[in-house]
Amino acid sequence: MLEQVEALMREYVESIGDSKSLELYDKVPKGKRLRAKLILKIAGESIEAIELASVVELIHAASLLHDDVIDEADTRRGVVSINHKFGNMTAIMLGDILYSKGFAKLTDLPNCVAKSVSSAVTKLSVGELLDVELAENFNINQEVYFDMIYKKTASLIESCAYSAAYLAKKDTTKYALYGRNLGLAFQIIDDVLDITSSSEILGKPSLNDFREGKTTLPYLYMYEKLNEDDKNILLSYFKKDLNKNEAQWIREKITDTEAVEDSIKYAKKLGLEALDSIKDENLPELEKIITDMIVREF
Amino acid sequence: MLEQVEALMREYVESIGDSKSLELYDKVPKGKRLRAKLILKIAGESIEAIELASVVELIHAASLLHDDVIDEADTRRGVVSINHKFGNMTAIMLGDILYSKGFAKLTDLPNCVAKSVSSAVTKLSVGELLDVELAENFNINQEVYFDMIYKKTASLIESCAYSAAYLAKKDTTKYALYGRNLGLAFQIIDDVLDITSSSEILGKPSLNDFREGKTTLPYLYMYEKLNEDDKNILLSYFKKDLNKNEAQWIREKITDTEAVEDSIKYAKKLGLEALDSIKDENLPELEKIITDMIVREF
Repeated sequence: MLEQVEALMREYVESIGDSKSLELYDKVPKGKRLRAKLILKIAGESIEAIELASVVELIHAASLLHDDVIDEADTRRGVVSINHKFGNMTAIMLGDILYSKGFAKLTDLPNCVAKSVSSAVTKLSVGELLDVELAENFNINQEVYFDMIYKKTASLIESCAYSAAYLAKKDTTKYALYGRNLGLAFQIIDDVLDITSSSEILGKPSLNDFREGKTTLPYLYMYEKLNEDDKNILLSYFKKDLNKNEAQWIREKITDTEAVEDSIKYAKKLGLEALDSIKDENLPELEKIITDMIVREF
Repeated sequence: MLEQVEALMREYVESIGDSKSLELYDKVPKGKRLRAKLILKIAGESIEAIELASVVELIHAASLLHDDVIDEADTRRGVVSINHKFGNMTAIMLGDILYSKGFAKLTDLPNCVAKSVSSAVTKLSVGELLDVELAENFNINQEVYFDMIYKKTASLIESCAYSAAYLAKKDTTKYALYGRNLGLAFQIIDDVLDITSSSEILGKPSLNDFREGKTTLPYLYMYEKLNEDDKNILLSYFKKDLNKNEAQWIREKITDTEAVEDSIKYAKKLGLEALDSIKDENLPELEKIITDMIVREF
C-alpha cells in the first residue's frame, strides 16, 4: 500500500510536466512516511485513502524543504539536504511546487478533508514561525512550547487522522484527538532524541536544538528543577558556541534533573491518552504506531 | 470594492490568530492589486468575487515574498522588501502562511475555481523554477521564454479571468483566453520596463534582468537582429558586472534593433487578441485594463 503512495506521489509530480521538478523530487529524502501509514491504517485500502496519503506526504515533504532552508540544515535523515546540494533558491521553489501540487490534488478529495488539511498547513506554517521566534529569547514557558509543537507538528497529524476517519466513515472527533496527542508525543520524542541520540543516528549534531536557542521540553523540565545559580549558568549558555565542558555540564544537569525521563514519561502519557480516545475502535495497529513512535532511535 | 478586498485579506490573516503574522503582513507592500481589479470587473460586486479576489491576492503576495528571496531583491516597488528587512527565513515563512491561508479559503469557493487557481499556482511555481534555470545559460529560444512567462505570470491571471467568469456565469473559455493574453502582455511590458525605466521608478537597477542572466523578449529580439560579431559581444556580457560603457553599448544596440518597440508591438498585439476574445461581452472596462497595463511606467 505504501508503495502505491510512493508511486502516486511521483505521478503527481510527473503530471506537472516539468522534467527539472521531477529530477529534483527524485533526490528528496523519502522519510518514514508516518503520516501515510497512519492514514492507511485508519482509512483502510481505498483509492481515496491512497490519494489523501499522497497529498499529505507531498505537503509534508514541501514543509521539510522549507524547514531545512530556515534551519540552514545540511542534512536530512543523514542524507544531504536539497538546500545544501542545490542551494536555498531551488529548495524554496521545489517546496512551492510540491505544496501547490498537493493543494491542487486536495481539491479532488471531499471538501471537509480539503478544509481540514489546508487549515492544518496554515497552523504548521505559523508553528514554524513561532519556533524561530521562540528561539530569539530563552523560552521557559511550557504553554507556549506546547502551542508551538501543536501547530508545527501535531496539527497536520491530527488532520490526517480526522480526514482518514472521515473517508472511512468513522468517528472523526475521536480520531482527531488520537492524532493530536500522537503528534504531540511524536514531537516530544523528537526533541528528546536531539539530546540522547548520537549525531550519527540523527544526522545532525547532538544538543542541536539548544545550540539554536530552542528550549524544548527536556530543557523546560530541567530549568524548572535547577537552583538559581544553575539557572543563571544555563541562561548564560543560551545560543553560545558550547565547548566540550559546557555541553558536558548541560548533559549532567539533564541527567540529575531526570528531564529526559520526565519528557518521555509525558510523551507516554499523551500516547496513552491517544489510545484511550479510540479504545472502542478495535484497531490494534494504531497501538503499534504509538509504540513505534515513542520507542525509537530516530 | 477594492477596499473590501484589502479588508478581507487582512481579516483572513487576522483569523489565523498569530499576532506576529499579522504584524509582518501589515508591512508587505500592497501592490497594484491588478488581479483583484480584473476579478471584480469580470465578476461584478458579489461576495464570492470579493472572496476570490482576496484569496488570489493573498496567494500572489505569497509568491512575491518567495520571489524576492529567490531574486535576493532588496526592494519591492521602491519599498524595502520583507526579506531585506527581516531576513530570508521570515519571508519564506510568511510566504508559506499566506499561501496556505489562501489555499484554505479557496476551499470555500466552487470546486472548479479551487482547481483552476491551485493548478495555476503550481504552474506559477514551476515558472519561477524555469525563470531561474533559463538564466543559467544565455537563452535565445523564444518559445522557451514564452512558456516560462505563461507559467510564471499569465497562468494565474488566466485563472483569475476564468474563475471570475465562472462565478458570474459568463463564458469561461473566452475569459480564460482574455486573461492568458493579458498576462503575457503584462509580463512583456514588465520586461520592457526593466530596460526603459529609471531605477527610481522601478525600485531596482535598470537592465537588472540582463545582469541576472535573464534574456527577456527585448534581448531575444535584439539578439536575432545583431550581426555575428555583436552577438558574440553580447554573449560575452552574460552575467557580467557591466561597466558604464558596456551598459551603454547594450542600450544602443537595443535602440538600433528597435527591440523595445518590437516588444511593445507584440504586447499590444496580444492585448488586441485578448480584447478580441471578449468582443461580444460588452465590458468596456476590460479594455481599460489592457490599456492601463500596456501604457504604464511601473
